Amino acid sequence: MHVDPLETLRGRRSAKWRTYPDDVLPLFVAEMDYPLAPPVAAALHAAVDASDTGYSLAQPDLGVALAGFAGRHWGWDFDPGAVTAVADVGVGVVELLRLLTRPADTVVISPPVYPPFFDWAPEAGTRLLEVPLTGEFRLDLPALEAAFAAHPAVYVLCNPHNPVGRVHTREELTALVRLARLYGVTVVSDEIHAPLVLPGAEFTPLLSIPGAGEVAVSLLSASKAFNLAGLKCAAIVTGGPALAALVGRLPPDVRWRTGHLGVLATVAAFKEGDAWLAELHAELDERRAQLGRLLSTRLPGVRWRAPEATYLAWLDCRALGRDDEPQELFLAKGRVAVEPGTRFGAAGAGYVRLNFATSSGILDEATARMAGATG
Amino acid sequence: MHVDPLETLRGRRSAKWRTYPDDVLPLFVAEMDYPLAPPVAAALHAAVDASDTGYSLAQPDLGVALAGFAGRHWGWDFDPGAVTAVADVGVGVVELLRLLTRPADTVVISPPVYPPFFDWAPEAGTRLLEVPLTGEFRLDLPALEAAFAAHPAVYVLCNPHNPVGRVHTREELTALVRLARLYGVTVVSDEIHAPLVLPGAEFTPLLSIPGAGEVAVSLLSASKAFNLAGLKCAAIVTGGPALAALVGRLPPDVRWRTGHLGVLATVAAFKEGDAWLAELHAELDERRAQLGRLLSTRLPGVRWRAPEATYLAWLDCRALGRDDEPQELFLAKGRVAVEPGTRFGAAGAGYVRLNFATSSGILDEATARMAGATG
Ligand SMILES: Cc1ncc(COP(=O)(O)O)c(C=O)c1O
Ligand SMILES: Cc1ncc(COP(=O)(O)O)c(C=O)c1O
Repeated sequence: MHVDPLETLRGRRSAKWRTYPDDVLPLFVAEMDYPLAPPVAAALHAAVDASDTGYSLAQPDLGVALAGFAGRHWGWDFDPGAVTAVADVGVGVVELLRLLTRPADTVVISPPVYPPFFDWAPEAGTRLLEVPLTGEFRLDLPALEAAFAAHPAVYVLCNPHNPVGRVHTREELTALVRLARLYGVTVVSDEIHAPLVLPGAEFTPLLSIPGAGEVAVSLLSASKAFNLAGLKCAAIVTGGPALAALVGRLPPDVRWRTGHLGVLATVAAFKEGDAWLAELHAELDERRAQLGRLLSTRLPGVRWRAPEATYLAWLDCRALGRDDEPQELFLAKGRVAVEPGTRFGAAGAGYVRLNFATSSGILDEATARMAGATG
Repeated sequence: MHVDPLETLRGRRSAKWRTYPDDVLPLFVAEMDYPLAPPVAAALHAAVDASDTGYSLAQPDLGVALAGFAGRHWGWDFDPGAVTAVADVGVGVVELLRLLTRPADTVVISPPVYPPFFDWAPEAGTRLLEVPLTGEFRLDLPALEAAFAAHPAVYVLCNPHNPVGRVHTREELTALVRLARLYGVTVVSDEIHAPLVLPGAEFTPLLSIPGAGEVAVSLLSASKAFNLAGLKCAAIVTGGPALAALVGRLPPDVRWRTGHLGVLATVAAFKEGDAWLAELHAELDERRAQLGRLLSTRLPGVRWRAPEATYLAWLDCRALGRDDEPQELFLAKGRVAVEPGTRFGAAGAGYVRLNFATSSGILDEATARMAGATG
């Protein structure tokens, strides 16, 4: 896939390109360096030409587009009316937690996990309980059962799991649904990276598990796979009447907070983006393989598991022997910005998360600099 | 100002054009039918061409642009660092109320007022107290003093005031600040319509009143004057350390919810939009005058005060003698959609709010149809 030269990329005004000085290669936040999918760019240009920048009215278009995409890609068929637009996944989770919890309740998460997972429960005024992934970065089902036995209100699932890149299996998800039903725990499933499951793995939507609709609500978005994080559109999907009724109780103004250009771009992405998405998967598959080669030759002390999904690599740098925060070393000496592992939970000490959704040239340069920084 | 033909406008996907069937003229929600300001359209096209659609990083650009605009237009000078980006005015108000109130507190508003004013306090988990405007649609300062004496936590000011179009005077605002200081009430000032103060009136930013910075926080946006409601960018402005510290306590993820294209469009609007805005003011001044003529000839039973700001007309239809909701009559018989007055509070019974940010042709047609509906 084409990637603009660095000087051009630095002209972008988004967080990836504005947070660090120009001599730093930014491989931290989850934005991609690839050009927009042509149907998405066309939809956005058309909206600007039509001065179509007022309030969003996401439905029915968003539901129809997402249901079509889910059916084609995952064999998951649902009623487009089961979809509710929100500004982004974080807003959706927080608003659901406000309805699902009281202050003394508990919300369970499984670190290492995307940093806002630690923020959402406090923002909704409730408490957090950490049940870490296993050493193999799988759901720790026995530990989850022990936690669920104390009747937490909610488990927030990350599937695919950022930062470790794990795609939870149908068996794991079936076991999770069984536990959720047994102990009366609602599962909020963050499936934002679902369209980024890479060759070799297969995505199972939580709501496609029999019985899940009674206990689970999912959040999806085109924002990661199509690089639309700044356009503010995500989708809540329900699979049964009780949770649909809950979503119906969201504050009345929440829907007006969805980005209109986000809706238009998302609809274009889900309806007309398949061909481009296939190219993206091939590109990320190559970058993932390239990163593996570069790490083993240049940074042999760094250990990783190639992610099954996402364009994020979770790098175990503990063998570099540089205390807890190798991110600082890579930044200060290598001028490469990656995410510090500790932002993903205490178990992330000694890790960094690297975004490989860039060109082979930038990836090559970044790993060379990182190797130099450790020398 | 150029307005596209109706068939073209109907191609827009925003709420204004999707809520009603095609035979209805939509003069309800606050979106405009004019084309985007050229610098705004250019900034948006450039961002799409650069695939610049990742997470927003609003500061310092947003603060610099807004402070420049405020200085040029209102002689209001402030530190660009006093600005915090949020997704929209409603989000900003709700998040501030969450910090400023506890459940047993009271939030005062002055109806008739923009419908979400009634939603924000409940959304933030606190209680609402209504202190209506006077019969002349002015702040009822004696009634506010009586209410403030019971120590409500917050007063949410609407300035300019939607739907009545009143621009509060410096004297009124000075008196309000005095009361707020005297009784320890924080004022949250919604100034979204400030860039839409029309010829004949002058806008006074609340924070330009001496002493206001200690008790007040303001919200501004380019979204109304430049028709960017769907792009999700507004600004919180503070004028003193205590309220700046409060804003510093907003949940950490709030800033990531701001729309990136909203920031880029807003910066272009505030920096390069003055010439276009002057044209818009001239256009709205004409439409306002036209509406006055059309009402007096075609709907002489309808009473109004021409608004000093906004493109919204608050029409007293009580003399039409058609019970409480003339909106239903205009829609059912006239195929014209306006906002029902009761959405703005109980005092709105018998009123409708009409959006005149359209072409002279559409305004002509709409008033003709409304007159026909009452016949
Ligand atoms: C697992 C996960 N959830 C949510 C998000 C953020 O989504 P949003 O911007 O829609 O809140 C990300 C971003 O990278 C993510 O990795
Ligand atoms: C007084 C007032 N405040 C807020 C808004 C909405 O602003 P936002 O979409 O930024 O929440 C409007 C919209 O018309 C308004 O009139």
